[in-house]
Amino acid sequence: MTLTPSPADKFTFGLWTVGNRGRDPFGEFVRPPLDPVKAVHKLAAAGAWGVNFHDNDLVPIDATAAERDQIVHAFKAALASTGMTVPMATTNLFTDPVFKDGAFTAHDPQVRAYALQKTMRAMDLGVELGARTYVFWGGREGAEVDAAKDPLEAIKRFRDAINFLCGYARDQKYELRFALEAKPNEPRGDIYFATTASYLAFIPTLDYPDMVGVNPEFAHEQMAGLNFFHVVAQAIEAGKLFHIDLNDQKPGRFDQDLRFASESIKPLFFLVKLLEESGYDGPRHFDAHAYRTENEEGVWDFARGCMRTYLILKDKARQFCKHAGIQALLAEIRDQGGVAPIGPYTPQRASELKARAFDRQTLTARRLPYERIDQLVVDLLLGV
Amino acid sequence: MTLTPSPADKFTFGLWTVGNRGRDPFGEFVRPPLDPVKAVHKLAAAGAWGVNFHDNDLVPIDATAAERDQIVHAFKAALASTGMTVPMATTNLFTDPVFKDGAFTAHDPQVRAYALQKTMRAMDLGVELGARTYVFWGGREGAEVDAAKDPLEAIKRFRDAINFLCGYARDQKYELRFALEAKPNEPRGDIYFATTASYLAFIPTLDYPDMVGVNPEFAHEQMAGLNFFHVVAQAIEAGKLFHIDLNDQKPGRFDQDLRFASESIKPLFFLVKLLEESGYDGPRHFDAHAYRTENEEGVWDFARGCMRTYLILKDKARQFCKHAGIQALLAEIRDQGGVAPIGPYTPQRASELKARAFDRQTLTARRLPYERIDQLVVDLLLGV
Amino acid sequence: MTLTPSPADKFTFGLWTVGNRGRDPFGEFVRPPLDPVKAVHKLAAAGAWGVNFHDNDLVPIDATAAERDQIVHAFKAALASTGMTVPMATTNLFTDPVFKDGAFTAHDPQVRAYALQKTMRAMDLGVELGARTYVFWGGREGAEVDAAKDPLEAIKRFRDAINFLCGYARDQKYELRFALEAKPNEPRGDIYFATTASYLAFIPTLDYPDMVGVNPEFAHEQMAGLNFFHVVAQAIEAGKLFHIDLNDQKPGRFDQDLRFASESIKPLFFLVKLLEESGYDGPRHFDAHAYRTENEEGVWDFARGCMRTYLILKDKARQFCKHAGIQALLAEIRDQGGVAPIGPYTPQRASELKARAFDRQTLTARRLPYERIDQLVVDLLLGV
Amino acid sequence: MTLTPSPADKFTFGLWTVGNRGRDPFGEFVRPPLDPVKAVHKLAAAGAWGVNFHDNDLVPIDATAAERDQIVHAFKAALASTGMTVPMATTNLFTDPVFKDGAFTAHDPQVRAYALQKTMRAMDLGVELGARTYVFWGGREGAEVDAAKDPLEAIKRFRDAINFLCGYARDQKYELRFALEAKPNEPRGDIYFATTASYLAFIPTLDYPDMVGVNPEFAHEQMAGLNFFHVVAQAIEAGKLFHIDLNDQKPGRFDQDLRFASESIKPLFFLVKLLEESGYDGPRHFDAHAYRTENEEGVWDFARGCMRTYLILKDKARQFCKHAGIQALLAEIRDQGGVAPIGPYTPQRASELKARAFDRQTLTARRLPYERIDQLVVDLLLGV
Repeated sequence: MTLTPSPADKFTFGLWTVGNRGRDPFGEFVRPPLDPVKAVHKLAAAGAWGVNFHDNDLVPIDATAAERDQIVHAFKAALASTGMTVPMATTNLFTDPVFKDGAFTAHDPQVRAYALQKTMRAMDLGVELGARTYVFWGGREGAEVDAAKDPLEAIKRFRDAINFLCGYARDQKYELRFALEAKPNEPRGDIYFATTASYLAFIPTLDYPDMVGVNPEFAHEQMAGLNFFHVVAQAIEAGKLFHIDLNDQKPGRFDQDLRFASESIKPLFFLVKLLEESGYDGPRHFDAHAYRTENEEGVWDFARGCMRTYLILKDKARQFCKHAGIQALLAEIRDQGGVAPIGPYTPQRASELKARAFDRQTLTARRLPYERIDQLVVDLLLGV
Repeated sequence: MTLTPSPADKFTFGLWTVGNRGRDPFGEFVRPPLDPVKAVHKLAAAGAWGVNFHDNDLVPIDATAAERDQIVHAFKAALASTGMTVPMATTNLFTDPVFKDGAFTAHDPQVRAYALQKTMRAMDLGVELGARTYVFWGGREGAEVDAAKDPLEAIKRFRDAINFLCGYARDQKYELRFALEAKPNEPRGDIYFATTASYLAFIPTLDYPDMVGVNPEFAHEQMAGLNFFHVVAQAIEAGKLFHIDLNDQKPGRFDQDLRFASESIKPLFFLVKLLEESGYDGPRHFDAHAYRTENEEGVWDFARGCMRTYLILKDKARQFCKHAGIQALLAEIRDQGGVAPIGPYTPQRASELKARAFDRQTLTARRLPYERIDQLVVDLLLGV
Repeated sequence: MTLTPSPADKFTFGLWTVGNRGRDPFGEFVRPPLDPVKAVHKLAAAGAWGVNFHDNDLVPIDATAAERDQIVHAFKAALASTGMTVPMATTNLFTDPVFKDGAFTAHDPQVRAYALQKTMRAMDLGVELGARTYVFWGGREGAEVDAAKDPLEAIKRFRDAINFLCGYARDQKYELRFALEAKPNEPRGDIYFATTASYLAFIPTLDYPDMVGVNPEFAHEQMAGLNFFHVVAQAIEAGKLFHIDLNDQKPGRFDQDLRFASESIKPLFFLVKLLEESGYDGPRHFDAHAYRTENEEGVWDFARGCMRTYLILKDKARQFCKHAGIQALLAEIRDQGGVAPIGPYTPQRASELKARAFDRQTLTARRLPYERIDQLVVDLLLGV
Repeated sequence: MTLTPSPADKFTFGLWTVGNRGRDPFGEFVRPPLDPVKAVHKLAAAGAWGVNFHDNDLVPIDATAAERDQIVHAFKAALASTGMTVPMATTNLFTDPVFKDGAFTAHDPQVRAYALQKTMRAMDLGVELGARTYVFWGGREGAEVDAAKDPLEAIKRFRDAINFLCGYARDQKYELRFALEAKPNEPRGDIYFATTASYLAFIPTLDYPDMVGVNPEFAHEQMAGLNFFHVVAQAIEAGKLFHIDLNDQKPGRFDQDLRFASESIKPLFFLVKLLEESGYDGPRHFDAHAYRTENEEGVWDFARGCMRTYLILKDKARQFCKHAGIQALLAEIRDQGGVAPIGPYTPQRASELKARAFDRQTLTARRLPYERIDQLVVDLLLGV
């Protein structure tokens, strides 16, 4: 087992994650700004593969064209000298007060237009830096006052925006896939498309559904108490897992963005196992940040910790597959007892099935040794 | 405002709701069984339009054919004499121990086969009694031990089952639509397809997607803290609101199935408003039960209360539309300021938009009087 | 029913509430600073009785003595000219980065000492302006990493701090009572003394327990899904309700501080009824803020709305007491059936009681018409 | 590290835990009744120290005196032959319909009297079998309808009951301590004394506060999202940890009573560490049950798993104390920098402190390497 991350592991961080300055609703910044160029170098040294950004993580919202070019030039140089990639980019459609009531779903058509413009420009920037995935997190697309916004209209407006931007990407010959990221609440009282599944349902209604998938985030589904392993499984089954945001979070509270697997050891073990076994070959992106009590040194402890625990869990997933006791129990549990599944519908099958006699007591009596296998997983996780 | 329910209101109750006997994980039955025939008469007298059932609410799981016929005969007579309808039926795939690890997603193919058989027979029963909607609530389709079940396989098994049953319904010329009902947890640690949106995402992958929609339940989404108004809006926008389960629930706890709008007055006002304005013309089904402290008299208090509060909220929805203050604020909020939306993508629009200058400060300054309109809604709800 | 607030209603607001500028974890300020003098005048005009503050709401943390005096002078003049009071004051022990790991429970004894100093000075300021209640909200007294802080030590440190400050207040002859305010989490992963009850348990262990009570906040208990009516009842029963923070919140999510009773109509009706009937004669303090979508005009809509809905609910509490149907049901429910309670322990009572025969069936059969009374409450709330 | 439990570990189980038959709100029993005598033998063989019970776990509610004596005789013989103890007993005041609206807080004084009688008799039974701790879980002491019950009155009634029973225990010379167990909800909508802290606050108001402590249960506090490590720390600091209920639970949902530490690995590590280091020498009681998918064999897997994981975590707690890296970081974090705490209040200390100059920047700059120590804990837990 090697716990030293390497680019082959495809670990990525957002500029906003290691650059998080520790401001929260009740307190001011505790850390100075982190230069993106420095972030690239430090992440590369730590073994990361890539770095992602919102447009304004790199280029301030009011930068002049000259400033933009200078920043991008320096950033590209850092990428080149370190071999770091930019697999994903996204737009900040939430920080500026202009987005106080949403971007693509805002009432004001000018705000919606501005959000489109800002996204097109941010796509240009992302593509210029190599991004292949473009994430949409509609953090302000929601409401506190359901009297004032029509959720049906909001869905239509969001669809119009995504369709427009798909058109733009195609027209520009951008090799981009879009990944939609859900969150149930915060900063809005309720955010539209509250769960990953909500976006999975929305995607088939788009003009170019093949271009669009999802970017599930552990913390966001965990806030609603949903089982993230199940959420990601549905995205994979639908062929729509285009990106993933890894972090940690306690359920039923504010967005914590904790170091990966610092709290939810067992659920994130199953997630890592699923990712590794599913054929997913995209970035393992950490969307988290260091505790507010940390200084910059702690930020790098945080980043290393995310990657380290991922690798530990990945190794445990391998062990799971080779663990004789676990595999024997799984074989027993999954044993079909020589009985074939019923197969697709035919009238004859239905008619035979309707007439078949079942002995419920016998079927009930079958052993399902879930306590035992679960304990073996706990043992495996605890290293005993 | 009339608060006397009539069949035109399309209020329905499940046999299991008024027939709930008040058993819970920590206590025994407090009420005697309620005869389904009596239930029909009492509900009719109270102004309900219809009654729904699980197969075993009406016919015990081990009833002989003769017993079944006798029960169905008596039930039909009660329907005929009262004019009550059976708009919806469903299968009990959770009470019997045979379903302890699921029905359509169970490991044992015989359990899956038995679940199909039980559902076909229950569909026959439902159709015989007039049902046009068939609900699937997969309460046992889930897991506590993610090591033991493969969630990808579970999705496929569930799809196979629904496809099979669609085939059966078509083959039998049943005019049935299927409505899938989600729940995040309880009785399983985590239930697959945890939210309504999860089923909305699943439906397009079926063989006959047009036959299948959703049956959102307020309590179930509320358990996960999701905004039910937004959930139902997405179902309506997708053309998939085939049925609805109305009740009440406090977030983040066990399934309470409280009297409609006994707790969540404001969210359920918006729901009623949405239903009434959306063109939804299906049943208003109450999936709830009386407090365990009640005797049978209290059960009918409970049933009348569900319908009464729905009618009060429906009337308030009408008032909302005629309320000059609210409508003036809405007009102001929704005012587009003479600026047309950007329209679908064209290269020219994109290029013009990219070059357009926006004044963020001006856009930000626009008033959004949400406190004021929300207070008017509170006033309206409180009747002042 | 008058819905025009007057000083007799004892409504108060924090400077930080109407002065909230709408910054959140994902967005910048949307409103300019509000001058405290203006706040006093606007609140007085709206019918409020008083205004509360953290030291730094009024005097910036780095103000010189001269600046402080000037600010206080102007503020006093505003109070004098409007007749507004300052019933409560508190210390900001959370905004400055120095408190990043707590104040009274910080590891560093110098931070703890500074927190004491800052509180003594803030008490001086509060008393100078007339405060009789001093609130302690230990928002940073908590942890994300339980390995690093000892919760037993934290309790002792917090006790030492409160004891020290009680000593100071007594020594200064300040007529101050302390009110401790709990919160389960945010901004810390977990905050010590997570609930009001936790402080109720802590108070008897202090040097001057009579000086210290609690300041329950609706949103904070609601975040944990607790029944605030029950929480406040225990505080009242213990004689410890020294202050109260009124607002609104959806359970299981980030701290929202919504307009009073904008969401939780029924629970807050019971709270208002309890407050009004309990003999509590302290401030009705609104610890909430306007939606981030609002401009300053909306801030005053928000403030007026808080008071208005309180008055509506207060009137409904009066109606409850005069409602013949409700009172008849209550009389029936509370009827003791001529049987006296058993009385305090005596050996003879115990021995007689152990021998008494009970008929469980008869006792069980007693009607408890809770559905009916609850529906009457819903009717009352909805104004029908 | 030995992972074989022995009586010295003081592991106990309730008869209702291994005897749980897997009924839930949506399904019937899946397991046959477990004979208490068999339970004693199997638990003894598995290494448990003791067994606890509700009166009716052992003696059915309608048993005759002769039946009772026979059952108790056989149970005592099993205890004698195995060396198993009965450290704790309790009363079932929730299963029978007579308790549908509570026991000690019921409206009907006859129900309250019956609850006292039942408890006195159950105390007799518990003491006869050796119990030194008597637990009170008021599962039905709560409400769904706050209009109908007065929470102030409920507190007083509960106090009267505990005072009465303390009198009885003293009079009988029973060497019993009472341990009060809180739960926020389920089976009632809201249960009075919703958290352990609520009971800690209540105890000082009793006639014999020294006799009464708390029995915190992990699952119950977890349901409300509270930090159990902090909860138990407060109980220990107050000298009131008389008993503890160990299990597991996901936050914000129905009561799951999962195998100890099957989900919440890290929080329960800190709990075990706290218990072991605190001097607590009472039972380590598992209040949990096997998954409903299990047969009896799985019940014993479950019981062994609870003890095994406790022992693993206990060993990791030992490792924590000997881990050089962790201890070095702790020493750094807890380093007081040569500055003494301020000490208890004196006028001179206050006056000196008020005048002292603090350099906030310097204090802020102090490193708090929480990411690093937390990662070491994760490593320790994962066994790397």
